[in-house]
Amino acid sequence: MSTVGQTIHCKAAVAWEAGKPLTIEDIEVLPPRAHEVRVKVLYTGVCHTDAYSLSGVDPEGVFPSILGHEGAGIVESIGEGVTSVKVGDHVVALYTAECKECKFCKSGKTNLCGAVRATQGKGVMPDGTTRFKCRGQDLFHFMGCSTFAQYTVLADVSVVAVNPEAAPDRTCLLGCGITTGYGAATITAKMEEGANIAVFGAGCVGLSVVQGAVERKAGKIIVIDINNKKREWAEKFGATDFVNPTELPEGTTIVDKLVEMTDGGCDFTFDCTGNVGVMRNALEACHKGWGESIIIGVAAAGKEIATRPFQLVTGRVWRGCAFGGVKGRTQLPGLVEDYMSGKIRVDDFITHRHKLDGINTAFDDMHAGDCIRAVVELE
Amino acid sequence: MSTVGQTIHCKAAVAWEAGKPLTIEDIEVLPPRAHEVRVKVLYTGVCHTDAYSLSGVDPEGVFPSILGHEGAGIVESIGEGVTSVKVGDHVVALYTAECKECKFCKSGKTNLCGAVRATQGKGVMPDGTTRFKCRGQDLFHFMGCSTFAQYTVLADVSVVAVNPEAAPDRTCLLGCGITTGYGAATITAKMEEGANIAVFGAGCVGLSVVQGAVERKAGKIIVIDINNKKREWAEKFGATDFVNPTELPEGTTIVDKLVEMTDGGCDFTFDCTGNVGVMRNALEACHKGWGESIIIGVAAAGKEIATRPFQLVTGRVWRGCAFGGVKGRTQLPGLVEDYMSGKIRVDDFITHRHKLDGINTAFDDMHAGDCIRAVVELE
Repeated sequence: MSTVGQTIHCKAAVAWEAGKPLTIEDIEVLPPRAHEVRVKVLYTGVCHTDAYSLSGVDPEGVFPSILGHEGAGIVESIGEGVTSVKVGDHVVALYTAECKECKFCKSGKTNLCGAVRATQGKGVMPDGTTRFKCRGQDLFHFMGCSTFAQYTVLADVSVVAVNPEAAPDRTCLLGCGITTGYGAATITAKMEEGANIAVFGAGCVGLSVVQGAVERKAGKIIVIDINNKKREWAEKFGATDFVNPTELPEGTTIVDKLVEMTDGGCDFTFDCTGNVGVMRNALEACHKGWGESIIIGVAAAGKEIATRPFQLVTGRVWRGCAFGGVKGRTQLPGLVEDYMSGKIRVDDFITHRHKLDGINTAFDDMHAGDCIRAVVELE
Repeated sequence: MSTVGQTIHCKAAVAWEAGKPLTIEDIEVLPPRAHEVRVKVLYTGVCHTDAYSLSGVDPEGVFPSILGHEGAGIVESIGEGVTSVKVGDHVVALYTAECKECKFCKSGKTNLCGAVRATQGKGVMPDGTTRFKCRGQDLFHFMGCSTFAQYTVLADVSVVAVNPEAAPDRTCLLGCGITTGYGAATITAKMEEGANIAVFGAGCVGLSVVQGAVERKAGKIIVIDINNKKREWAEKFGATDFVNPTELPEGTTIVDKLVEMTDGGCDFTFDCTGNVGVMRNALEACHKGWGESIIIGVAAAGKEIATRPFQLVTGRVWRGCAFGGVKGRTQLPGLVEDYMSGKIRVDDFITHRHKLDGINTAFDDMHAGDCIRAVVELE
């Protein structure tokens, strides 16, 4: 029986309030309106950003809501005016939309898109309403995706069709972490062959920066992490060096160490930790005259970065990126092909798997040191 | 009688100690050693950096010394191995050296040069000694220039020959402020036609940023200064708008105002104040996605810049430059030609003139609101 045009009843993990575990609920998912797409979600990753919002410190976090933003699935139905995807398409959800029409999309300078930004930040669809109901209440959307549900509704600018032969338990991870790191190294950083780089934090994002740096034929690829178990991970993805900053000799800072290892400083550094102190070290470990530090990690609300302006006057550059600078609808299908051809490694990242009812365990996994990515199956 | 190979006795303004006025003294200037050049200084500008070091808060300030770094003159004699200039050449002193051989010079990415940096910072010549004596004492050099003397000795990488038809009371100003601002706009910033820019601080540097922006056919060129007398100056050099941030309506910040004036933020902003709070505003007034803020001003020792990392993650870029990114020996002669052809305005900047014995008055002028540049004649 076709569900097109009907409200769908299905399961979802609902975040009723900040700081509490998710609960599995029967929810209603309304049909997509104009320029919206309803997707049957097959797999979703669980990312630190989900945990950050659930913790309650994200100023944009609203409850009750359905979290999740690393999702892959199949288009169940489309609203009026949708031309970019069709029913049956295999898709990845995009928390960074791409409308191809706004000032940002047309600038050629950024992957940020202004089309749905305001409503997405408020947890609603572009028309200001929500498509989820549970126990008689509206549930808010999250990051324009809400992939912790068996069905979700997205703006058509927030979804992209990819090669249907790519396994959705892998492509879901291209919806955030892997693409963020890989894109930061290959799109945001204009890395030359032989460039010395440092990556702070060896999670999914950091290891994907390493993948991107290997692709760009970087010279030294130095991974910094306080967890020694990450040494093996770093080397597996192509890092040339691993430094645990807590094990440096008394009086030697991580900046000193990196400057020494690279004869003056790194050409590019990447913060994949969200820690503002680490961000400062990442900047100051850059080579005088040209080194660039790229902030990828999301800092806690209210935290600020700082440095002496002399660091910039002497040629270091401080920048950042979201989703690695990747334009979701234009560039993500190509990254899926790169995964299919073996150029981007995805499978290795999946260290934990759960069914929807185990999703709280996936959050616990993430906080343990041996998890890179936990994937949740929604069927 | 030739002075070549002889110690020269002449006048100089000596900084005996921090926080005290300069005193005019008879000094001895030793002959140039290998790869050094002795220059008869004709004119020198007086710059905020001289005042900063004299104040005693510059950690690199050493005393007694001869300050001054915006100088033009004529080569009196050269040491062994000097091939880049010859006796009689009209030259400008370069506080940012260019050796053309070090890692920095060869990188193609920066105008910073490593050749004499360490010794310059200590107030000595590359061999570790000084060429000035007064009352039996050695005097330190300053920024590799020491142009507050009738004769000075510079490393050959710290001096450049320019068109001898260019008046030295003008070319001296191309040794720092004008070039710094003009270079920041035309070399450091990759400005496109129609770009909206904001310049914080309408002194010599800020007004030269305006000149550079006009040359690059910028769109809105907004000058921000708390001194309303600078409105006329800004307009004279081509600014399209002037904002006095102290006169904004209650509750409107300068960032709000600039974002509103430029429909989302500036493509480039320039800090020419050295105030770290202003630097933050300059960054945050940049357009999301691509706006770049360039720090030119020198902050007081120990001061730090800060912002939320979100500003960078959403695409703003924070960078800086020294001497506008201009390579002194390679590019300054061309800027002198641009001055000769009327492309760069220099004459207008000279609001005050003094003889050497009036140099303390030149410092006083600088702190008054109606001075852009005071030029001191050394003959």
